[in-house]
Amino acid sequence: MLTCLRRSAQKVNSFGRRTISSRRLVYENFGDPAKAILLQQYDLPKKLENKSVHVKWLGTPINPADINQIQGVYPIKPPMPAVGGSEGYGQIEAIGTEVRSLKVGDHVIPAKSGLGTWCSDAYLSELDVFKIDASLPSTSKATLQVNPPTAYRMLTDFVVLKEGDTIIQNGANSAVGQAVVQICRARGIKSVNIVRKRETPDAQKKLEEHMKSLGADLVITEEQLIKEYRGKFNPSLALNCVGGRSALLLAMALDHNGVMVTYGGMSKQPLSIPTGPLIFKDIKLCGFWMSRWYENKDNVKERVMMYEQLGEWIKTGKFHPPQLVARKLEEHQLALEKAQTDHSCKQFFVPND
Amino acid sequence: MLTCLRRSAQKVNSFGRRTISSRRLVYENFGDPAKAILLQQYDLPKKLENKSVHVKWLGTPINPADINQIQGVYPIKPPMPAVGGSEGYGQIEAIGTEVRSLKVGDHVIPAKSGLGTWCSDAYLSELDVFKIDASLPSTSKATLQVNPPTAYRMLTDFVVLKEGDTIIQNGANSAVGQAVVQICRARGIKSVNIVRKRETPDAQKKLEEHMKSLGADLVITEEQLIKEYRGKFNPSLALNCVGGRSALLLAMALDHNGVMVTYGGMSKQPLSIPTGPLIFKDIKLCGFWMSRWYENKDNVKERVMMYEQLGEWIKTGKFHPPQLVARKLEEHQLALEKAQTDHSCKQFFVPND
Repeated sequence: MLTCLRRSAQKVNSFGRRTISSRRLVYENFGDPAKAILLQQYDLPKKLENKSVHVKWLGTPINPADINQIQGVYPIKPPMPAVGGSEGYGQIEAIGTEVRSLKVGDHVIPAKSGLGTWCSDAYLSELDVFKIDASLPSTSKATLQVNPPTAYRMLTDFVVLKEGDTIIQNGANSAVGQAVVQICRARGIKSVNIVRKRETPDAQKKLEEHMKSLGADLVITEEQLIKEYRGKFNPSLALNCVGGRSALLLAMALDHNGVMVTYGGMSKQPLSIPTGPLIFKDIKLCGFWMSRWYENKDNVKERVMMYEQLGEWIKTGKFHPPQLVARKLEEHQLALEKAQTDHSCKQFFVPND
Repeated sequence: MLTCLRRSAQKVNSFGRRTISSRRLVYENFGDPAKAILLQQYDLPKKLENKSVHVKWLGTPINPADINQIQGVYPIKPPMPAVGGSEGYGQIEAIGTEVRSLKVGDHVIPAKSGLGTWCSDAYLSELDVFKIDASLPSTSKATLQVNPPTAYRMLTDFVVLKEGDTIIQNGANSAVGQAVVQICRARGIKSVNIVRKRETPDAQKKLEEHMKSLGADLVITEEQLIKEYRGKFNPSLALNCVGGRSALLLAMALDHNGVMVTYGGMSKQPLSIPTGPLIFKDIKLCGFWMSRWYENKDNVKERVMMYEQLGEWIKTGKFHPPQLVARKLEEHQLALEKAQTDHSCKQFFVPND
C-alpha cells in the first residue's frame, strides 16, 4: 500500500506549509453518471483542523445507490458540486492535534453515508470515519460498510432467529442477497432463495451452483415457489428487494407473526401485499435502511461488535466479498458504464493507484 | 326486557326436570346466507352444568364477518351444523352451582368470536361470556363487542397519539370507521377521512355532513387527497380497510415512523405499498384482528377498562351506536338479504321478541 502514497502531489505554499493536491470524481448536476462525473484536481486546505484526519482512500466501490444519487433519483440529494461514492476504506495519513481515537496508519471506513469516497485524499472530521481491522483483505475492507451490514442487521434486528430456522428472500443474488446467504450459513439458518428465471437452463444452473457454493439451501424461481413449494416452509423472516408481485409471494409464504423487511425495490413496482396474512396471520412489514442505522449514535457499540463478527467470518473463510474489478480514477467513464450494465462483478476505484 | 323472557317454551321431561326449548338460526353448508340459514327449534340439555350459565340473547347483529363465515370465505370455519352470529348481548337467566363471576340478571356479551349468537337461549361456559354494564342502551350493548373495540384498539395499541395529533383512514364510513371518528373526537385527535366518491354531489354532501356530525375533521375522496391535500398533514397512524391503490395513498401520506394498520380489504385487491416510504421514512405495516386480541388472556383487565371508557362515552353522548333495524328470528331471510344490500343501517336480531 505504501507505494500508493507517493502519488499525492505536495507543493510548498506561500506561507511555507506544504499544500496537498488531490484528485476527486465530482458532479455538478444530476444526470447520466458516465457523463456527469468529472475527474478534478484540487488542493486540500492548508491546515488540517485539530479534530480532523487526513484520509487516503485506497478502495472505494461503485454501489447502485451511488448511481441513483448521481442520477438524482435517490432521496438524499447532496449539495453541489458533490464528490461521488459513499463506501470504501482508507488509511489515516495524518491526524490533527486533538484527535484521540485514531492514529496514523489506522484503516478506516466512512462512519456515515454520503462522504464522497471517490477521491485520493480528504480531510475529514475524526467522527466521520470508523476504525476497522487493518488485517482484513483489501476487497473485504472496501465493501464492509454497506451490503454485509445490511444483511447482518436484517437477520438480527427484526426476528429472533435460532439455528435451524428458515428465512426466505427474493433478489437473492443481489450483493445483499449473497451476504444474507453467507451469514445464514455461518449462523446455521436455512435460506430459501428466490431468483429470476434465467434465459437458459445452463445459466440457471450456473447461478444455482454459485448460490449453493455460498451456502444457499434452496435456490428457486417464483414459479417454482408457487407450483412446487407452496406451504413447504414457514419462514419467520422474509427479505424483499424486488417489490411488486414478488413481495406478495413472500408475504404469502410467511409464517404466523412473520416479518417482511424491504430494503430495495428492483422491479420499480409498489409491493403487492395480500390482506389476509396481515389480519389473520399477524404478519408485519417494515423497511431497512443501513444509512439510518449508522446515523443512530446508540448503535456505535453494536457496530464494533458487528464488524468483529463479520471480520471473524471473513478471516475463517465463511464470508467472501463480491468479485471486484479495480479501476483507476481516470477510468471513471468505463467504470460507471460497467457498473450499470455488468452485474457479474462490482466496479471499484483504487484512488491512489 | 323482562317481557321477552316469557317466550321460551318450557316443558317437563320424563325425569321431572323442565326442558327449555329454544330457537336458533343454523346452517349446515356454506353458501348464500339468505338460503343457507334455517330457523330451528331445539331443546337445551336437561341439566345446566355446574360451571355454565343460561343466556337469553336479547340483541344480536349481523356483521359482514358473519356473512363471510356462512359463505365459507372467512378464515375461521366452524364445525357444522353451526349457529350464525358472533356478536350481541344477552341476559343471564340461570347459573350453575359453581359459577362465581356472574349472577342472574347480569348482562353479557360473548367473550370470544364464533359463539353463535343468533339464538334465543344457550347454555354456555361461564368463561364464554363477559359481563358488561347493564345500564347502557340496548343498541349500544348489542354492538359493543366488535366495531367500537376494533377502533379503540387501533387508536391505542400501535402509535402513541396525543391530543391534537392527526390520523388518516380509508373506508371512513364503515362501521369501524365511524367508531374511529367518534373516538378521535372524544380524545381530541384529528381525523382525515377518505370516502369513495358518491354518485351525486348531494349524496356526497349528505355523507360528509353525517361524518362531520360524528366528529370528522375532514371528509375527502382519494382524488381530493391527491390533488388538494398532498403533504398537507403528516399522520402517524393510517387505518386501512380497503387495500389496493387506496392503501398506497395512505402509505404515501404517512409521516416518518408512521404505522398503517389493516383491518379489512373491501376492494378485494392486495394492498399496493410504495417501497420508498418503507425504506426511507421507516413506516411500518401490520394487521389487526379483534378476535385475536380477545383470545389473549392477558388482555382481560384492559378489556374491562376499555368497556368502561366506551361506556362512559356512550352515556355522555360522545359515542353513538350505528342505526339498527330490529328483526325477529323468523325474518332471517329478509334480514340477511338486507345486510348484504342496504349499508345505510345494520340488521340485528331480537331473538326473544
